[in-house]
Amino acid sequence: MRPVLMRELLGETLREQRVAQGRTLRDISGSARVSLGYLSEVERGQKEASSELLSAICAALDVPLSQVLADVSDRMALRENVTTLPVGAAVAYAA
Amino acid sequence: MRPVLMRELLGETLREQRVAQGRTLRDISGSARVSLGYLSEVERGQKEASSELLSAICAALDVPLSQVLADVSDRMALRENVTTLPVGAAVAYAA
Repeated sequence: MRPVLMRELLGETLREQRVAQGRTLRDISGSARVSLGYLSEVERGQKEASSELLSAICAALDVPLSQVLADVSDRMALRENVTTLPVGAAVAYAA
Repeated sequence: MRPVLMRELLGETLREQRVAQGRTLRDISGSARVSLGYLSEVERGQKEASSELLSAICAALDVPLSQVLADVSDRMALRENVTTLPVGAAVAYAA
């Protein structure tokens, strides 16, 4: 199982925030001054967002960057547990 | 006051981890297969680390990436509070 990358979970988090707010790629890309295509690639985990761009996207979403990072950390922790749990652990959880 | 950038807090966090372990830039750069100069720039917040490089550095430090991100989130939250607290809030805290 390939380890998950930070940009993938960051993209997931940013997309979920945007969708939860009922906002479009066009809206956020305009506010954050990034091309719609690039923002879409960031959301899909295909491009790294620079720190400046990440700040601009969070500002456009009106979400503190600290909150986005905490969310990404939580998602990462879940994936790390999945890949490091000993065999049988899933059975124990399911029981 | 310029908003702090993610790469600056990430660099701080990675450097503190390395120093706390008593390890050298040479040691970590060797394990993570990144040049010593590049790692040093990442630690000083001058270069963005790709998600792949970030995973490699965390593996070299034997620290879960989720923990590093939680640490960066905490540092970011402190900075956000400093810049967003209303005037007088520091006085209230100090009282």
